[in-house]
Amino acid sequence: MRAELLSIGDELLIGQTINTNASWLGKELSSRGMRIVQVTTISDDSDIIKTSIDQAFERCDILFVTGGLGPTKDDITKHTLCDYFNTTLEIHLPTLQRIEVFFSKRNRPMLDVNIRQAELPKSCEILENVNGTAAGMWFERNGKILISMPGVPYEMKGIMSEQVFPRLRERFDLKSLYHHTILLQGIGESFLAERISDWENKVRDLGLGLAYLPSPGMVKLRLTSYEGVQREAEIFSLFKELEDRMPEYVFAHGEITLAEKIGELCRANGLHIGTVESCTGGALAASLVSVPGSSDYFLGSLLTYSNDLKVKLADVSTNSIESVGAVSEEVASEMSKGGLNKLGVDYCISTTGVAGPNGGTDLKPVGSVWISISSRTQTISKFYNFGDNRERNIQMTVLTALNLLRCMILKINIEKK
Amino acid sequence: MRAELLSIGDELLIGQTINTNASWLGKELSSRGMRIVQVTTISDDSDIIKTSIDQAFERCDILFVTGGLGPTKDDITKHTLCDYFNTTLEIHLPTLQRIEVFFSKRNRPMLDVNIRQAELPKSCEILENVNGTAAGMWFERNGKILISMPGVPYEMKGIMSEQVFPRLRERFDLKSLYHHTILLQGIGESFLAERISDWENKVRDLGLGLAYLPSPGMVKLRLTSYEGVQREAEIFSLFKELEDRMPEYVFAHGEITLAEKIGELCRANGLHIGTVESCTGGALAASLVSVPGSSDYFLGSLLTYSNDLKVKLADVSTNSIESVGAVSEEVASEMSKGGLNKLGVDYCISTTGVAGPNGGTDLKPVGSVWISISSRTQTISKFYNFGDNRERNIQMTVLTALNLLRCMILKINIEKK
Repeated sequence: MRAELLSIGDELLIGQTINTNASWLGKELSSRGMRIVQVTTISDDSDIIKTSIDQAFERCDILFVTGGLGPTKDDITKHTLCDYFNTTLEIHLPTLQRIEVFFSKRNRPMLDVNIRQAELPKSCEILENVNGTAAGMWFERNGKILISMPGVPYEMKGIMSEQVFPRLRERFDLKSLYHHTILLQGIGESFLAERISDWENKVRDLGLGLAYLPSPGMVKLRLTSYEGVQREAEIFSLFKELEDRMPEYVFAHGEITLAEKIGELCRANGLHIGTVESCTGGALAASLVSVPGSSDYFLGSLLTYSNDLKVKLADVSTNSIESVGAVSEEVASEMSKGGLNKLGVDYCISTTGVAGPNGGTDLKPVGSVWISISSRTQTISKFYNFGDNRERNIQMTVLTALNLLRCMILKINIEKK
Repeated sequence: MRAELLSIGDELLIGQTINTNASWLGKELSSRGMRIVQVTTISDDSDIIKTSIDQAFERCDILFVTGGLGPTKDDITKHTLCDYFNTTLEIHLPTLQRIEVFFSKRNRPMLDVNIRQAELPKSCEILENVNGTAAGMWFERNGKILISMPGVPYEMKGIMSEQVFPRLRERFDLKSLYHHTILLQGIGESFLAERISDWENKVRDLGLGLAYLPSPGMVKLRLTSYEGVQREAEIFSLFKELEDRMPEYVFAHGEITLAEKIGELCRANGLHIGTVESCTGGALAASLVSVPGSSDYFLGSLLTYSNDLKVKLADVSTNSIESVGAVSEEVASEMSKGGLNKLGVDYCISTTGVAGPNGGTDLKPVGSVWISISSRTQTISKFYNFGDNRERNIQMTVLTALNLLRCMILKINIEKK
């Protein structure tokens, strides 16, 4: 099936808005087996719209049109489509009722222009829009399909997911996608690919899609079934295999942050935690605090950015700082032990390093970081080098420290990292 | 002048890449007075490219083509354009030399495919690409102009800025833009617009462009001259007028963060600072530490998330917490005073509030925040409510606290906020 996208709106032409609708539609449609031939962006102009539809239908079978369905005067798509398909407008009662509910829920007065949004072309099928007042429209003529939707991304996506894809699946041989993801911390994309190449081959042999979705310090692995949710159990067991093989990296399924995962673990085990930070300067605490309700398990931190404060607040010995320097295993472990007592927590994470861009030496170049975690029974300290970008250093240290804490709470062996 | 954009590349059609080139070109060209008629995205297919050019030239005078100039086999734009303009390829020596330098600088071997990138159409004008190996091309026929550039955004932008705009300005009546911006914190877009409506009228009467560019907690004001840099002094004096009128809001010119501004002020005045944070949980410190070299003036913080630690670490009195609660002027000021001593700094900022989504009461709803700043001679405490979004609350508290500190250091009166 050959598809095209037609985006209508001056705001797209003058670059005020980036056309993310086109990339979303392109990705969703092509992954289901449609071939996208062309994406066209044009002005809100009736003649141009009609010409563009004619030209598109010379190349494709189905045309997805977005934009120009708002209540203001410059939105002319609906009238133009009426004209193009030789039909007229009439009040569509279900849509009118939805618009009335929409406004009454928001306690906003309903204006004439809003009522007019319920006037829709007679000859099309109406596609319900649960996220807004502009309904979608499905036209057909001579074996060609035109689907018109509002340009507001979440309204368009809602109509696509709830109205368009089900109809397309019913009538055409569309692939039915099911995705599931797991999240890994502490291993880069290429190392991961090497370590799981046997697993990857198996996955591909099973006809599943695999995507590596990396972000700084993390990799998301996505498995896709083209036969829908019926392969869910198989996908889960494939992921379970990876979790068992590398528990020190796989920290969660789906959309959850490491800080949220730590929150879950602390609640489940009745733990209180805190941090003593130098190079991360509060970023580790801020990450923990970004989780709503974190005050239940996160008690506080000492940000001992200066050496003086490391001694004064966290009971680090002046001797350690003078003999081996602030960026050292000794100071890191003294910081986490000191914090454990000063903050009265069950686990205390400390960080000390050279975030950069300045302050590096031959022995301790920019990017050198010691992370230490103390509990009542144990202190673990580990050394890393995250390279020469300050922002990335801080971010990597935060993620690595949180994952170390996760492994320590879960008693996962991290010695062979 | 009517212009069109033609983006070539399957990665755009399948949504792997978002077409940011189109929005950048749309913005830059339309702000200089060109009218963008259509943006078209197509596949790397020779016939489709030629048809699209023909159709575009029926509608426009100048066509900007991006993509398909890479060294790999699927990049066919150059050959297609040769065909379209009835010309052949020949080695372009300056380009070959640039490519050689490009590879030797990076210590990478130069392959045959890279040499072939110096083979360029005879009949076009070559547009030098200082950021990559694919040169731009300027074709003309029958009064129509076609400009072909690589799809890599910073290469395309470099060619546009250094090669295309100067040529366009020379030949056509293009507007010459000059921008300057100032940054404001602590006043919303609509309030600002109301307070400076007289100034805005003056600016518009002078024929300058004004844009409000809001982001959470900040507004950037941009003035644009369409007659180039020659109006720079005039723009500076207009901005100076605003700075004098509202010094409590205007914190800087250009691209600088509030944390960087604080860094400048601390260095200039030999000051050391620290924080005692509750609701911001380290985000205020993290913002200060994000500035390279911040260890020169930022000493450290106490993150007293629990009440117990407020008392233990920051010398807050149990009595205050019990009688008026942790989110109160008393506790905020005790925190900043306590931190001043414990951290040994010249200025200490404290934050205590209800970040949400839970923990609000009738008297202290979600979003209630006290910020206090102590110096050796003075303590200022202020109350805010930033609404019910946790992330936004924390972000707004950080920005507001930094701007309060700026005003306090500069002795700007902030009482009438």
